[in-house]
Amino acid sequence: MSRAQLIMSQIRDIEDFPQPGVTFKDITPMLADPSGLRACIQELAQGGRDQSGQATVTKVMGLEARGFILGGAVAAELGVGFVPGRKAGKLPHETHSIPYALEYGEETLEMHVDAIRPGERILIVDDVLATGGTAKAAAELIRQAGGVVHAISVVLELAFLAGRSVVPDIPLHVIHRVE
Amino acid sequence: MSRAQLIMSQIRDIEDFPQPGVTFKDITPMLADPSGLRACIQELAQGGRDQSGQATVTKVMGLEARGFILGGAVAAELGVGFVPGRKAGKLPHETHSIPYALEYGEETLEMHVDAIRPGERILIVDDVLATGGTAKAAAELIRQAGGVVHAISVVLELAFLAGRSVVPDIPLHVIHRVE
Repeated sequence: MSRAQLIMSQIRDIEDFPQPGVTFKDITPMLADPSGLRACIQELAQGGRDQSGQATVTKVMGLEARGFILGGAVAAELGVGFVPGRKAGKLPHETHSIPYALEYGEETLEMHVDAIRPGERILIVDDVLATGGTAKAAAELIRQAGGVVHAISVVLELAFLAGRSVVPDIPLHVIHRVE
Repeated sequence: MSRAQLIMSQIRDIEDFPQPGVTFKDITPMLADPSGLRACIQELAQGGRDQSGQATVTKVMGLEARGFILGGAVAAELGVGFVPGRKAGKLPHETHSIPYALEYGEETLEMHVDAIRPGERILIVDDVLATGGTAKAAAELIRQAGGVVHAISVVLELAFLAGRSVVPDIPLHVIHRVE
């Protein structure tokens, strides 16, 4: 079984969550398994390495909240720092702030203004790329601070929501694509 | 400089956040630094090891949301699985649920009913032990599922809030105690 197959075998569908008609991809069984968690972190970290395996990014930005679970571990795996992309009002210091549309509802993503120095290369990490709204907001936050978006690493791409088209200029590192 | 000193040198005080009169301990500068992040994860993981360095826990429970950033990485460091302790309504599957009081406000902590098997030993990970309300709720969730709370690992203990007295029966692994 490949790493991707192991990971996918531990992700379950939950129907009608968070609202009727939506099938939610629940990664918690994978997180709870040592082999699944390890494989997932290693795979996501590939989005921040060059061909020789060297880290090509200086920081990982994890997106609240499931992207925190994965992103902190990916940063440690790569030997780089971690920056949280948080929902409105959660960060205590001065922030950049970007409103965006979600698959269901609206949100605002925030980042500390001093979280990224100009020229830093950032890997964005989240569990799922859905409509791409969160990923696009994260990229805008990074660029506002003068950073470079190196790539986006996600466990799942929900291809039917066409999130890829919203961030056409950013390399996507996807463990599994749901058609 | 010791690991604890390195970590503490990268945590800053933010006055009057999230409300007037509260001094918030902001760990984001430490997370953003590769050495600080690595030292912090290694220190927190000590709460789940025996004297020989072997993992004595089977899972790490991280508490939403800053405990996710640290907890996922600590689980990977220990080679065990991760279980999220989440705010109300965020987990898609059937949950156990415990209401608790915070330093400011009220919350509910939830855990999937199938996240922990009876007899599993769990390390709870969070950034700060304040009043102890969240940690106590996490311990109750683990015990409801038949798990054993091995220890609580936190970066900071706010000793003046006496959270330790709320979880008197659980070993606390604390990087720094704020008097």
